[in-house]
Amino acid sequence: MPIVRVEMWTGRTEAQKKELARVITDAMVNIAHTTPEATIIVFEDIEKNNWAQAGKLSSDE
Amino acid sequence: MPIVRVEMWTGRTEAQKKELARVITDAMVNIAHTTPEATIIVFEDIEKNNWAQAGKLSSDE
Amino acid sequence: MPIVRVEMWTGRTEAQKKELARVITDAMVNIAHTTPEATIIVFEDIEKNNWAQAGKLSSDE
Amino acid sequence: MPIVRVEMWTGRTEAQKKELARVITDAMVNIAHTTPEATIIVFEDIEKNNWAQAGKLSSDE
Amino acid sequence: MPIVRVEMWTGRTEAQKKELARVITDAMVNIAHTTPEATIIVFEDIEKNNWAQAGKLSSDE
Amino acid sequence: MPIVRVEMWTGRTEAQKKELARVITDAMVNIAHTTPEATIIVFEDIEKNNWAQAGKLSSDE
Repeated sequence: MPIVRVEMWTGRTEAQKKELARVITDAMVNIAHTTPEATIIVFEDIEKNNWAQAGKLSSDE
Repeated sequence: MPIVRVEMWTGRTEAQKKELARVITDAMVNIAHTTPEATIIVFEDIEKNNWAQAGKLSSDE
Repeated sequence: MPIVRVEMWTGRTEAQKKELARVITDAMVNIAHTTPEATIIVFEDIEKNNWAQAGKLSSDE
Repeated sequence: MPIVRVEMWTGRTEAQKKELARVITDAMVNIAHTTPEATIIVFEDIEKNNWAQAGKLSSDE
Repeated sequence: MPIVRVEMWTGRTEAQKKELARVITDAMVNIAHTTPEATIIVFEDIEKNNWAQAGKLSSDE
Repeated sequence: MPIVRVEMWTGRTEAQKKELARVITDAMVNIAHTTPEATIIVFEDIEKNNWAQAGKLSSDE
């Protein structure tokens, strides 16, 4: 059942996403009592010039 | 009023999206009693290496 | 694989959501060539005072 | 930087969300090399009659 | 065309949302050169026990 | 605390996003009484062939 959406700046490698997928799925199964098959994770890579904090694009920092 | 967001793996053609837009809009109008003009559909193409199920990236299957 | 998210004003009945789930899933299967089991639909009911168009809350119209 | 969004059926307790917040944040820090302070997690509880799979509302299963 | 989604902790009043809707729509029109009618804003009120930062639910702080 | 997500057709320049980030953050601070540092804005550029209204892809209009 759970859908997990992870938004991060671009730059994370495929190896990092693999590891995140494994660990987050384990957490959902162990803590939220769902099954691995029912756990979907979607990664979204956001460019720094599409992300702002404190009123400034992160590409400007 | 309705906003429909469709996340699919990349690979769907523009013809498929056109057809989906038409059919889903018809469904919203006929079943949810809205107007075509008020129905917005946003497609998001997700790469298989940004999608995980059962703890594995879909690009690894 | 596909995740479909439907945001509508509150007020749609469970019967309407059932019908939408059936028709949208059929569309995903027939047009986007996925399976029914892989098609997840999430409905979000939005109160009119949480929705604005043309700079005005929809509850004010 | 990362924003993690977790959609689950209603019914998860506050204790489970606390534990998920802790473990997912640790994963983001250790694997994606961000800081705890920069990691935001948003939980969304979805009623079963707002969730459909295989064309059926989950409240009907 | 633009869809703006604003996630905030519960507690903002309807007057605040009205003002935000007005000001954000003006910004979209003046800066992004769209029309008021094409600008949709959706507010999502998030309970503090559904929001975590630094690994802790905001309701615990 | 607030997360603002802005979906627009591709074509907005970085200068426009900078200005939007500044103005929307000011609005959140002044109207919703948060801090600039706590205000995150994510822009998503949507291709016109991934956007439909009235049952038609916007790239066809």
